[in-house]
Amino acid sequence: MKLNIAVLPGDGIGPEVTAQAVKVLKAIAINFNHVFTFSNAEVGAGAIEKFGDPLPESTVETCKNADAILFGAIGKTSYDLDPYAKVRPEQGLLRLRKTLDLHTNIRPVIAYDDLLIKSSLKKTQIKDTNLVIYRELTSGIYFGDKFLSEDNNTASDVCKYTRNEVERVAHMAFKAAQSRKRKLTLVDKANVLESSRLWRRVVQELASQYPNVEVTYTYVDNAAMELIINPKQFDVILTENMFGDILSEEASVIVGSIGLLASASIGDKHVMFEPIHGAYTKATNKGIANPIASILSAAMLLEHFGLDDEAALVREAVDKSLTLHITTPDLNNKYDNITTTKVGDFIEDFINNPDETNLN
Amino acid sequence: MKLNIAVLPGDGIGPEVTAQAVKVLKAIAINFNHVFTFSNAEVGAGAIEKFGDPLPESTVETCKNADAILFGAIGKTSYDLDPYAKVRPEQGLLRLRKTLDLHTNIRPVIAYDDLLIKSSLKKTQIKDTNLVIYRELTSGIYFGDKFLSEDNNTASDVCKYTRNEVERVAHMAFKAAQSRKRKLTLVDKANVLESSRLWRRVVQELASQYPNVEVTYTYVDNAAMELIINPKQFDVILTENMFGDILSEEASVIVGSIGLLASASIGDKHVMFEPIHGAYTKATNKGIANPIASILSAAMLLEHFGLDDEAALVREAVDKSLTLHITTPDLNNKYDNITTTKVGDFIEDFINNPDETNLN
Ligand SMILES: CC(C)[C@H](C(=O)O)[C@@H](O)C(=O)O
Ligand SMILES: CC(C)[C@H](C(=O)O)[C@@H](O)C(=O)O
Repeated sequence: MKLNIAVLPGDGIGPEVTAQAVKVLKAIAINFNHVFTFSNAEVGAGAIEKFGDPLPESTVETCKNADAILFGAIGKTSYDLDPYAKVRPEQGLLRLRKTLDLHTNIRPVIAYDDLLIKSSLKKTQIKDTNLVIYRELTSGIYFGDKFLSEDNNTASDVCKYTRNEVERVAHMAFKAAQSRKRKLTLVDKANVLESSRLWRRVVQELASQYPNVEVTYTYVDNAAMELIINPKQFDVILTENMFGDILSEEASVIVGSIGLLASASIGDKHVMFEPIHGAYTKATNKGIANPIASILSAAMLLEHFGLDDEAALVREAVDKSLTLHITTPDLNNKYDNITTTKVGDFIEDFINNPDETNLN
Repeated sequence: MKLNIAVLPGDGIGPEVTAQAVKVLKAIAINFNHVFTFSNAEVGAGAIEKFGDPLPESTVETCKNADAILFGAIGKTSYDLDPYAKVRPEQGLLRLRKTLDLHTNIRPVIAYDDLLIKSSLKKTQIKDTNLVIYRELTSGIYFGDKFLSEDNNTASDVCKYTRNEVERVAHMAFKAAQSRKRKLTLVDKANVLESSRLWRRVVQELASQYPNVEVTYTYVDNAAMELIINPKQFDVILTENMFGDILSEEASVIVGSIGLLASASIGDKHVMFEPIHGAYTKATNKGIANPIASILSAAMLLEHFGLDDEAALVREAVDKSLTLHITTPDLNNKYDNITTTKVGDFIEDFINNPDETNLN
């Protein structure tokens, strides 16, 4: 298969972790006779510094011409601390999601047996957790009208949804549930928000098209609690943009490190794969950033194109690295010298020589 | 002291748990020579059924004439499942908060040594956690303009804040920090929301008035993770209405049961005390509802009026009930027959006879 992949490393640890994912994809290409080509492009704080724009037109073009996008991370502390900044790194990511209409963000949350011990949660609580969050990604309060009064003393954001916006992500979530444990939980705040009541109505209506899927409805405050108390009750969680942002990062505690969580952002024409962690500026260039979220995002990319054996091999390599403690410090109590690159190298080696590495 | 207390038991388990809190307040009054009078009033689904209004004018009057309000819980499953309902129990609570201008909701989260084992989190993670969430309660997306198109296909909610709304809750949070560990964390989503940037600006400005308070800023997604990974890092968490709703219910996992979390809602003229749990309809009248959140809300009421010894005694009684496993099933692995009323009776007895009960 030929795939043209746009690579947007972004800021902070983005470049380091993305480099490992690219390395892994290259190894897959060689071993499975695919032709993957990679086109790099700028986004985020770096792009602001170079072009005055967190999402230069050239980056949009590169993405539009690609079969898939591999995204790193964006953000920079100086912008975080400046609530007056008009141009912000995050706008690059948000505009990209919107421009490419990447409406459905898929965030799997899987408790690895080897990592149960790393979680803040008790082992019995999380063992066998395997859920996936379907987060709407191009609407809601992220993209509604924003307002700031001239005197800077009144500010507002609008959370708006249309039926169509809810339907498309809901259909994807229902379909996912059908091929999983056939349970879908809509998370909303329908007791307070008009937009949540729209979500609830639409999902109630669609439910009849998926009679074999059991649908439950939970308020977001309750969901934030249940996700920790009893994560195993969930199969597919469907929710709007902001709630999905909060719940998916919260869910990282189940897995043991945010450095493990991958995601796919799916639109009708374009697809993007990105770790859910941020730019983690403090860790930049220290070799401590966990590349697994980015590598697993690459695995999701492969799966998206039906390259299931290839993805399975990547996942096997990741599992192996976890079992053998070839992991960055966020996960490692055993060895203290495993860098970002070493993890990438190990996974690359495993792909090149699955049997040999197995023997180690 | 004379206190006129409005009691709004509400729906579901509200009446059962509130009855225990009233019992406890009566015991305090007798033992400390106070005169507490109680005026009951209707709110929520019950009020809709009787008066067609979740917050009848008579209830508002009762509350306005009271020194303090003790609130139970509201909500009913039939409304939860009907996203077309125009009149909803929750409107009673929200209108009450708004009408009485109860702008600051204070939610303490304290890990009890006796309950560490009950938490989903590992003991080492949570031991000695003592944080408090200051949640803005009368503005934000809860109270901004709502819109539903005639065809029911587009819906929106506005999250709006003014400088003044941020300032008043922020001042209260800063003051609380000064008398605690002098750390304040603002939780927002300033990388995306205009309203969050207003919060960040205002808090940055106020910080100079509280030079002995260390201020940090965290995005809500990150906060949802950090609250579980390392809750001990927090002292005072300050946040807007919706984020406060989510984070405070999430934080209940630290304590081991949502049935333990009390809150105070403070305005310039009125004060209300309420458990953070909901109506928990399924548990109604089964004797399994945990009354401690309501009883601790009563303790917060006493503290609000400077009755610190009285509150301390209530807290001591609660601690004792936890140590002796005189608790409802959500907390009890030892005895299976301790009802809501029994917990209330034990705490009442302790207040009447602290020394004797101590000997048991
Ligand atoms: C960086 C930020 C704008 C982004 C979001 O809030 O969507 C991130 O937190 C994520 O979850 O992808
Ligand atoms: C019942 C509901 C409207 C309420 C809220 O969202 O504020 C509750 O969850 C709370 O936290 O007090």
